[in-house]
Amino acid sequence: MKEACGVFGVSGDPTAAYTTTAGLYALQHRGEESCGVATLHDGQIKVNKYMGLVHPHRKLLRQMHGEYAIGHVRYSTTGSSTIENAQPLVFPSRKFGTFALAHNGNLTNSKTLRDSIEAKGGVFLTTTDTEIIGHLLHRSSAESLEGALSDALSQVEGAYCLVLLTQQGVYAARDRYGFLPLVIGAKENAMIAASETCALDAVEADYCREVLPGEIVRLGRANRIDTVGRLQKTMVHQEGTVTTQPHPSHCLFEHVYFGRPDSVLFGKSIAQVRKAFGRQLAREHPVSADSVVPVPDSGIDAALGYAEQSKITYGRAFVRSHYGVGRTFIQPEQAQRDFAAKLKLSVIRAEVQGRRLVVVDDSIVRGTSSKKIVKKLRKAGAAEIHLRISCPPHKAPCYYGKNFPTKAELIANRMTVDETCAFIGADSLKYLSLEGMLACEQELQHSFCTACWTGQYPTKLTDKEKSR
Amino acid sequence: MKEACGVFGVSGDPTAAYTTTAGLYALQHRGEESCGVATLHDGQIKVNKYMGLVHPHRKLLRQMHGEYAIGHVRYSTTGSSTIENAQPLVFPSRKFGTFALAHNGNLTNSKTLRDSIEAKGGVFLTTTDTEIIGHLLHRSSAESLEGALSDALSQVEGAYCLVLLTQQGVYAARDRYGFLPLVIGAKENAMIAASETCALDAVEADYCREVLPGEIVRLGRANRIDTVGRLQKTMVHQEGTVTTQPHPSHCLFEHVYFGRPDSVLFGKSIAQVRKAFGRQLAREHPVSADSVVPVPDSGIDAALGYAEQSKITYGRAFVRSHYGVGRTFIQPEQAQRDFAAKLKLSVIRAEVQGRRLVVVDDSIVRGTSSKKIVKKLRKAGAAEIHLRISCPPHKAPCYYGKNFPTKAELIANRMTVDETCAFIGADSLKYLSLEGMLACEQELQHSFCTACWTGQYPTKLTDKEKSR
Amino acid sequence: MKEACGVFGVSGDPTAAYTTTAGLYALQHRGEESCGVATLHDGQIKVNKYMGLVHPHRKLLRQMHGEYAIGHVRYSTTGSSTIENAQPLVFPSRKFGTFALAHNGNLTNSKTLRDSIEAKGGVFLTTTDTEIIGHLLHRSSAESLEGALSDALSQVEGAYCLVLLTQQGVYAARDRYGFLPLVIGAKENAMIAASETCALDAVEADYCREVLPGEIVRLGRANRIDTVGRLQKTMVHQEGTVTTQPHPSHCLFEHVYFGRPDSVLFGKSIAQVRKAFGRQLAREHPVSADSVVPVPDSGIDAALGYAEQSKITYGRAFVRSHYGVGRTFIQPEQAQRDFAAKLKLSVIRAEVQGRRLVVVDDSIVRGTSSKKIVKKLRKAGAAEIHLRISCPPHKAPCYYGKNFPTKAELIANRMTVDETCAFIGADSLKYLSLEGMLACEQELQHSFCTACWTGQYPTKLTDKEKSR
Amino acid sequence: MKEACGVFGVSGDPTAAYTTTAGLYALQHRGEESCGVATLHDGQIKVNKYMGLVHPHRKLLRQMHGEYAIGHVRYSTTGSSTIENAQPLVFPSRKFGTFALAHNGNLTNSKTLRDSIEAKGGVFLTTTDTEIIGHLLHRSSAESLEGALSDALSQVEGAYCLVLLTQQGVYAARDRYGFLPLVIGAKENAMIAASETCALDAVEADYCREVLPGEIVRLGRANRIDTVGRLQKTMVHQEGTVTTQPHPSHCLFEHVYFGRPDSVLFGKSIAQVRKAFGRQLAREHPVSADSVVPVPDSGIDAALGYAEQSKITYGRAFVRSHYGVGRTFIQPEQAQRDFAAKLKLSVIRAEVQGRRLVVVDDSIVRGTSSKKIVKKLRKAGAAEIHLRISCPPHKAPCYYGKNFPTKAELIANRMTVDETCAFIGADSLKYLSLEGMLACEQELQHSFCTACWTGQYPTKLTDKEKSR
Repeated sequence: MKEACGVFGVSGDPTAAYTTTAGLYALQHRGEESCGVATLHDGQIKVNKYMGLVHPHRKLLRQMHGEYAIGHVRYSTTGSSTIENAQPLVFPSRKFGTFALAHNGNLTNSKTLRDSIEAKGGVFLTTTDTEIIGHLLHRSSAESLEGALSDALSQVEGAYCLVLLTQQGVYAARDRYGFLPLVIGAKENAMIAASETCALDAVEADYCREVLPGEIVRLGRANRIDTVGRLQKTMVHQEGTVTTQPHPSHCLFEHVYFGRPDSVLFGKSIAQVRKAFGRQLAREHPVSADSVVPVPDSGIDAALGYAEQSKITYGRAFVRSHYGVGRTFIQPEQAQRDFAAKLKLSVIRAEVQGRRLVVVDDSIVRGTSSKKIVKKLRKAGAAEIHLRISCPPHKAPCYYGKNFPTKAELIANRMTVDETCAFIGADSLKYLSLEGMLACEQELQHSFCTACWTGQYPTKLTDKEKSR
Repeated sequence: MKEACGVFGVSGDPTAAYTTTAGLYALQHRGEESCGVATLHDGQIKVNKYMGLVHPHRKLLRQMHGEYAIGHVRYSTTGSSTIENAQPLVFPSRKFGTFALAHNGNLTNSKTLRDSIEAKGGVFLTTTDTEIIGHLLHRSSAESLEGALSDALSQVEGAYCLVLLTQQGVYAARDRYGFLPLVIGAKENAMIAASETCALDAVEADYCREVLPGEIVRLGRANRIDTVGRLQKTMVHQEGTVTTQPHPSHCLFEHVYFGRPDSVLFGKSIAQVRKAFGRQLAREHPVSADSVVPVPDSGIDAALGYAEQSKITYGRAFVRSHYGVGRTFIQPEQAQRDFAAKLKLSVIRAEVQGRRLVVVDDSIVRGTSSKKIVKKLRKAGAAEIHLRISCPPHKAPCYYGKNFPTKAELIANRMTVDETCAFIGADSLKYLSLEGMLACEQELQHSFCTACWTGQYPTKLTDKEKSR
Repeated sequence: MKEACGVFGVSGDPTAAYTTTAGLYALQHRGEESCGVATLHDGQIKVNKYMGLVHPHRKLLRQMHGEYAIGHVRYSTTGSSTIENAQPLVFPSRKFGTFALAHNGNLTNSKTLRDSIEAKGGVFLTTTDTEIIGHLLHRSSAESLEGALSDALSQVEGAYCLVLLTQQGVYAARDRYGFLPLVIGAKENAMIAASETCALDAVEADYCREVLPGEIVRLGRANRIDTVGRLQKTMVHQEGTVTTQPHPSHCLFEHVYFGRPDSVLFGKSIAQVRKAFGRQLAREHPVSADSVVPVPDSGIDAALGYAEQSKITYGRAFVRSHYGVGRTFIQPEQAQRDFAAKLKLSVIRAEVQGRRLVVVDDSIVRGTSSKKIVKKLRKAGAAEIHLRISCPPHKAPCYYGKNFPTKAELIANRMTVDETCAFIGADSLKYLSLEGMLACEQELQHSFCTACWTGQYPTKLTDKEKSR
Repeated sequence: MKEACGVFGVSGDPTAAYTTTAGLYALQHRGEESCGVATLHDGQIKVNKYMGLVHPHRKLLRQMHGEYAIGHVRYSTTGSSTIENAQPLVFPSRKFGTFALAHNGNLTNSKTLRDSIEAKGGVFLTTTDTEIIGHLLHRSSAESLEGALSDALSQVEGAYCLVLLTQQGVYAARDRYGFLPLVIGAKENAMIAASETCALDAVEADYCREVLPGEIVRLGRANRIDTVGRLQKTMVHQEGTVTTQPHPSHCLFEHVYFGRPDSVLFGKSIAQVRKAFGRQLAREHPVSADSVVPVPDSGIDAALGYAEQSKITYGRAFVRSHYGVGRTFIQPEQAQRDFAAKLKLSVIRAEVQGRRLVVVDDSIVRGTSSKKIVKKLRKAGAAEIHLRISCPPHKAPCYYGKNFPTKAELIANRMTVDETCAFIGADSLKYLSLEGMLACEQELQHSFCTACWTGQYPTKLTDKEKSR
């Protein structure tokens, strides 16, 4: 099961549950399906999980005490999403004491591990990778939970960012490739781990550094506010390193689409790297036009870059509604199925009529959304529509947690770029080249996973190979 | 954790989820804390669980298809009740295929089993006995789930009634002592297992027989309505017997209080055995009075028996409200804490004023409720109050699933009967003798567990002995 | 619109909203459709209304302050019940200051009044009689609200019990015939008006007297608990009398069915008068049988009386579930429409099988419920079923607030008693005579409305006459 | 009571309730407090109202049938908002038949009218202007509801846009000054009235024209899609004109802030007029800077205009969260009161650090929000912050429906512009001049209400004058 999610953990914070909830709110874009918070207080681990968006209930937060907490937001990947699969999972272990676990990412040997555990008598109550890691922790011969964590993580392959709440405090861990982001921050006495820096900003914590690829850390507790500088070294203990040769392969699609614009991921401002992609896109695929407009919100920064480089005026053709439509909106007739989508994005006709537009978007998956957007602009009287995409065509599945459709559904596997352009109805369609992207990231060039465009995977795909 | 609950299972019923819900409604008195239904449809097991009373949601039932279902109502025993502990539990097993499990009762070696499973690497996500049984099933070396069930149940001690939903259908099992009731019924093509016969009546099924102590059955599917008689033998397969020497020790308190008056448990009508207790009580402890009144609703049948035997007029002094007050009723002042209780039971003053009353109740635990009842009657002008209890004084804990307070809290361990009478404020207080009770059950005399009155337990208490 | 409801009002109570909610809980049997509470605090009238049963929300009650409150429970009479029609209604009047009004009963000239008010420019936002009274209050030329109340009530005909919350406190009024019950109680500094005495008991208030037919009272505020005796005269001001010749016509069906057994209505204990009806029924219609059983709960007291008089053993054949089934219970097939009813009343087979039963119920309306009950008893093996009804056959509509079906639907207008007996399937069917009933009420004989049995109405029926 | 809201009405639409709900969704920015839909079906008017955002419930819409509907969204102006004040209001009138009414705007003689109606015996159940109009309708001597509407509206002063659902269909009316927007659209057989054109776009209707100031229209029903052109004349009957001399005084603040960017109001594209304001602002108040950034979302278009005119690069400094925080978000400590606001708007540090910024916003009311925004930018390292506001300083209350704070709270009445700049902490602060604004609107120059900046009101303020 794909698990593109967000995680958060905090130690040494008298309002840990509240801080975690605020942090999860900032990570909401990483998962809207369910969310959960677990706290440690007086040796008891308490968990509250619910389906849907982060919406802190006064009563709920009042009941969650303690200075240690972890939290999780989950991405809706399938219709069978249930509260059973919501995280964190709590393991009432007698060996280690009750602990709670939440993770983001996708293991590439989960089926193999699961079969092996079941063969040894292990019993599962969920279908999550998180429960597999819980089993490995428990089965480790290590005496301590810290030792067990090193032991367990040495057995899993693939992508994960993990937060663990134990009787001893909060731990965070990241796979050896660093596929997904995981950062550390500090605020007064508290130490924080989070999927993105925007969650640190949300709780007014200062960014310290990333959890390194392959690193396991324990979040400590600062004694005094003026020792924050040293805290990073002394309090954030580097308990063990899963491998001596970490091999960074950061997910480049986080920079294109997934991360929030105000986050700094893999050492770069998302907003700025997206503007760089836009500028490079203008260099590679210039066109004569009246204005550059984004598909909001994910195309905004690249459109700003494109406008800046091309000297064509930046404008907006769409207004995006702030209000949720929800899945339950009713379409009394089958033909009105797209109604919800139509309500979400509205055209500013006066900005479109008779204009030659460069429309910048982050990616094309099935092509159906782009087709609708072009149709809306045509209906509003656009003279020309030049679609520019700020990454290469998507051609391959992600085994590390991003939820793309099947290979057959990806339009780039079914049509050429020209055919896609005709299908969508644009006057021209151009993609940013992989070389162009990497040029924008040149100081980090060696370190990205680009599998979804190239089909070249940096890790073994154990489950996949076995199923051949 | 004490698990005084109700279970239900049905096979061969096109509206299995609906039937199960109706059955659980009839078993509601066995557990008001949470309820759940699991169905098998197209090889998929689906579960819906929620906190609170059985309240069938149209939408929910619409989504649950298939001819096989099990269900569970859970008794509120502690404040830490959570949806995680609600049943049935679903185990996504690869070895046996996904299965669901629900049980009623309390294992006396659960801690021991849990430790042993954890020592072998087992991981738990709940604190229920049910999950332990799931682990034992899984760890069995048996090839089939049926074999595994025999294997697993041979390891557990104590009281249980189990329903199991597998890819092959529905199974039911009962411990070798038969502590708790578990009956089988039939309706058209459907076969049903349920905690009490009132659940069979609720779904208009005919009673067939009990699941025998130590028996495991598979619920089959009848082809025709007229073959019900043979169904018991052919369709309700007796797969294995846990022991060749079942040793019935039926819980006598089910007859006194727990079972519903319209159920037939352990071969006896509850209403009639309670009337017999009442008659015996009148024989043992006669008194001169104007009327015999019950504490509703549990004292009604015994009061009818007492009146019949004593020739004193039966009447009613109390009206019990049909409406739930709920735990959330507000008491603005500390002194009004008992308000909810007061609202539940109202006195008919005209039936009390100046009268000499025999008040019949089923049991006294802490004595506080009885004290309030007597106070109410005094306030309404009762001339004399003679309290008669239709069982002996409770003195010992139940290790098989009934949720009594601690030994120290039981008033019979703190006071003599006379002191209790003074504490409660009655003019006289008398209990039915154990001998008297057993005389009422004489044809079954050898077969009851009377531990809560005698402290003599029919089984090993492994966990308890280990903790000494 | 028929309005068979319950009202409650309290003055001088620091927890007025809580007291009112507790009182409404005790009056719940008078209306399950919606409920509402209005309070006066710092010159502001605040109202909270909701559909469904009285279920005090902590948050809601926390927000309702002040020493004056009125409340209302409403009976579900039609499918079009809406929150707009829930009471109390709040009138933001500038002339009198904002006031709130709730009432129980049915005006017989409401259409006439409504037309007249509309003709003078009046505008309505609900379809309640309560809004009509609000208009009359407002249109009165009286200076004070007290004067306006006398003025308004002199114009309405029919049945009403009214509670009014104004800036000056709480008023209560009752029509000149006294159709419906309305009593006054006292507790410490507080004075209370309520539909039944059971609501006084619920809040531990002492009964003072009835609001007299045709009387308007203001609930005062006692200074001290020991002055309750004088309070009735001094604090409960008798502001004005609608007529100098009140003509009591108490609703006799309140004694048969509507009132709660623990209430004292029209000067009589409901439980005791019902027992008297039962004894009289035994005298009028004796039969040889093994036991007398009630249809719970409304038949219990009459059954006790019948058993006492006939010397036949009282018993129970039915168990009534404490748990609500709700309207939303699902019947997947049309044929299972009666399922909810089936679940509500269960038969104790052992008490029925082979027995000759006298079954006592309070009334027969359409006959369908009785038919089902007899069918259940037959299925359980009853040898003979003798149905005894504790009032005469219902033949005429009630224009004063009781919600009977149309004349054509009443079985007594369609069949003779013998035909009804055959339809229902009983071995015999007998009704208590009107003479017999009145003999049981002999000290009050002149004062009852018996229109639903006799078709003789004590008042003009202005709307009805006009519509001819 | 201020009533800044949105209205919608539709006739001749088989899915009228659904269309109205979709239209209200598009008008959500005009009112988030409560919403409601009323439909006409089989002569019955049905209404559903609820607190909070438009969130169509499947069940609810399934129950609302018919081809005629009106709807309303309400703006939260006070804490005492209640469901009683939600609209549409339904009047069960016998004279005209039941009708429903919803309106947007504020009457300036509502108190006077209310007193007059009360003096004539009128009774109110809400505190809305809508109920006043309902009374006037009812009190009119006109025979028809159409005649009554002309009559009623000739008595009210101030601002209103009205939709009325009667047994004869849907009407719409607008005050003679045209303060608030109200447009007409057509789609297949349906005719639509709505507060803004964005609601027409949402339901894929074509814009026809505005309801003229002082005009009352009846929405007809087109037979065929190709007759839309004539529909405006033939189907949208112009029933009566309130005055022969309409005097347009469109609310200019709708152009600055209130309208949605994709709407065309008073004949102008909102997005484009805001860009014109931005260009004019750049002409009036140029400054040397590195980038022009908006306060999202209301400052975006003006910022684009400022950037275009000034040739300074447009960028973004803030990300606005798509997710609602809700009023219930918890702030455990008093000092964290601003937390919700902080979570809503996040700074992109990399776009701010060391930069000289022109920050464009639509208005300053109390100054506290601007102060927080500047503080955030300073914390992120902004070198210079030049705040530019796209309208003049707000100095006077609005009596026509916009909800500004009291005169004393408006910062422009307490401080000079320089003092305000110092209070906010910006390096410079400049407002667009009224002359500059009107120059941008020059073709319509004579027709705007600018009272909130100038204190000059185009109408009598009857209530206000009386209260002097």
